Amino acid sequence: MAESRTYQWWQREDLGYRENELHFAGRKVAALAKQLGTPSFVYSAQRVKANLERIQQALVSAGLESTSSLYYAMKANRFAPLLTFLKQTGLCGIDACSPAEVEHAVSCGFAPTDISFTATSLSNADFDLLARYDGVFMDCDSIHAIHSWGKRKPGTSIGIRVNPAVGVGRASNDKLQYAGSVTTKFGIYQEQFEEALAVAHSYGLTVSKIHFHTGCGYLTPQLAHWESVLETCLWFIETAGSVTRVNVGGGLGVPHLETDTPLDLDQWAGILYKHFGTRGLHVEVEPGDYVAKDAGLLLLGKTFVEQKRDKLFVGVDAGFNIAPEPAYYALPFQPVPLNYSGEPCQATHVVGHINEALDVWYENAILPDLTAHDHLVLINAGAYSSSMASNHCMRGQFKEFLLF
Amino acid sequence: MAESRTYQWWQREDLGYRENELHFAGRKVAALAKQLGTPSFVYSAQRVKANLERIQQALVSAGLESTSSLYYAMKANRFAPLLTFLKQTGLCGIDACSPAEVEHAVSCGFAPTDISFTATSLSNADFDLLARYDGVFMDCDSIHAIHSWGKRKPGTSIGIRVNPAVGVGRASNDKLQYAGSVTTKFGIYQEQFEEALAVAHSYGLTVSKIHFHTGCGYLTPQLAHWESVLETCLWFIETAGSVTRVNVGGGLGVPHLETDTPLDLDQWAGILYKHFGTRGLHVEVEPGDYVAKDAGLLLLGKTFVEQKRDKLFVGVDAGFNIAPEPAYYALPFQPVPLNYSGEPCQATHVVGHINEALDVWYENAILPDLTAHDHLVLINAGAYSSSMASNHCMRGQFKEFLLF
Repeated sequence: MAESRTYQWWQREDLGYRENELHFAGRKVAALAKQLGTPSFVYSAQRVKANLERIQQALVSAGLESTSSLYYAMKANRFAPLLTFLKQTGLCGIDACSPAEVEHAVSCGFAPTDISFTATSLSNADFDLLARYDGVFMDCDSIHAIHSWGKRKPGTSIGIRVNPAVGVGRASNDKLQYAGSVTTKFGIYQEQFEEALAVAHSYGLTVSKIHFHTGCGYLTPQLAHWESVLETCLWFIETAGSVTRVNVGGGLGVPHLETDTPLDLDQWAGILYKHFGTRGLHVEVEPGDYVAKDAGLLLLGKTFVEQKRDKLFVGVDAGFNIAPEPAYYALPFQPVPLNYSGEPCQATHVVGHINEALDVWYENAILPDLTAHDHLVLINAGAYSSSMASNHCMRGQFKEFLLF
Repeated sequence: MAESRTYQWWQREDLGYRENELHFAGRKVAALAKQLGTPSFVYSAQRVKANLERIQQALVSAGLESTSSLYYAMKANRFAPLLTFLKQTGLCGIDACSPAEVEHAVSCGFAPTDISFTATSLSNADFDLLARYDGVFMDCDSIHAIHSWGKRKPGTSIGIRVNPAVGVGRASNDKLQYAGSVTTKFGIYQEQFEEALAVAHSYGLTVSKIHFHTGCGYLTPQLAHWESVLETCLWFIETAGSVTRVNVGGGLGVPHLETDTPLDLDQWAGILYKHFGTRGLHVEVEPGDYVAKDAGLLLLGKTFVEQKRDKLFVGVDAGFNIAPEPAYYALPFQPVPLNYSGEPCQATHVVGHINEALDVWYENAILPDLTAHDHLVLINAGAYSSSMASNHCMRGQFKEFLLF
């Protein structure tokens, strides 16, 4: 079976083959697909919790036991049962980015004081709604936002989202650049920071937090560069003078490809302690992808297997519109058969049912012959999938299930 | 005012400034925005009709008066009032690509016999539902589809979607390549075509139509290449032997940039007549973008104007998730102020309220100072916008209005 191991890099204790049958979260996946129907997202509550605990443990080990907080970035996956479960774990607050997300988090049991809010281009209607939720902590990402919040909540504490003008991210993916040499809409730059502080001061606002989100999907090889980005943010902290907390955003990456190495969390947490812990700053982290992505599978029905010209295609009963990340960000979801007993494999193109050229789930997946299979799953589908789903071509139907 | 004309390439009779106020479909846009609220899509029924009539007139002039049919590609915009209006014009049938689209078209008044169906990766449940709508014309895009339809509708007529292995599209946009040197999931290739005919024959199916869709967004400069693609499809028509209709798909482009030239419809229709009309073939066309795109505006509220580092940003109250085309396909929607009286302009970045790096509506739009403006509109937002909208970040709220 050694020669066929090449596509099984993703196996772990709660996801893998037992007696040739794929298991996930203690269940046989074939039985799940048969019962639930397709397309369906299934999320493992225990995996979500384990991902959060792993981050927390790394922060504790690094010396940030009582001086760090996790805020789950709910934009990654806002499925209500998942949010309610997260609330009950007590492991995290919520990172929200729209007034409707704040309402939804509260509807799932989070208190406003559990919520850190960071958004961009807010309207007056947005600010009015947010101001009703006393306790939500506002990170202002523009001078306009400081004015708008200051008028509504004078004398309170705020964060300022800054832009260090250097960024980090998954190699060569310019769609995930939030900060870098090209000026973006995100945050306040060094050039406007003194003005921002003066505006905050004019409303009696205390700038107690600096927030920066520098990119998405970084893994261990990017940590050295990530550290250099953190260092550039010290200027903002020192200049503000009143900062007690620093929010380093999210962006912790998850392996998508066999060649990806997992993020070394101890090294990551050590960097945070070195720069912020030693200065007595409380560290906030906003993981989204890292918490939810590898806790979710997308169960699909197989529609056909067919040779077209020089390629073998496998069709499935869902398109990129219900899980746009692979199509839009070139971050493919590995397809995995529901049973496998060492048969020879070949390059296979897994495609969906949308009439669009970018509706390709995976090119050159190394798969066995799926002619006799009814289903297929995509792994790493727990984040930025259902949350970004559309009804394009009226193919927006899917179900979601939280597995305990 | 000459120096400021550079950004007004998009003006036309039903869209432009009158006494410095932007008008659309006979209305003052500022009054619309104030009444309807933002974000709102507004669609001009008359512009939609004019776009269809322009295509029809070109086909008639070219000699295809009684031998051509238009099928509106409803995936471009399925807003029910728009579909119902289209039904009443009598100018077109419907190109549908999912069973739910068939149901929706019928719900808006179209008869099953008005519907041409072309899809990919259909499931057995899809085929079962489609088989209930007698009269829907099925274009099979795989040998698997011929088997599946033949079992359910033996002895009927079908189309075969073929893939000529050469494509055409807007220059350098590989996300819009449906056919080309790289093998895609779309259609049946020459290598498998004889097998496809044999399978059809085994179910008593008559292959009366050949369908091919070769790319999106072509304009006049691409027509010569488009013609060479059409020529490669003649082989399929001759080989099938029983073909009376040819469907050339959609893909007729609309100018997005000042440098784009509009598609020369007479030249386009002349090519269709030359290759198919002279052979006595009935020509079907499936325009979507061309019909709906320039008939729609997206009305937005302005949230802020702010200098960040070296750039000027204007924020609006909607993000790429309610109109993903600019972000995903690099086809920007020109931003247009609601009033303009010749003030000097400068490069401005129009951005939305989603915390994503790709949430940029337009880079370097040449705009006047918008500090005193409440609104902004994006033109060319009538297609592949609301139809692809998602609730990402729970920012999916928008309204739609059909203007008569």
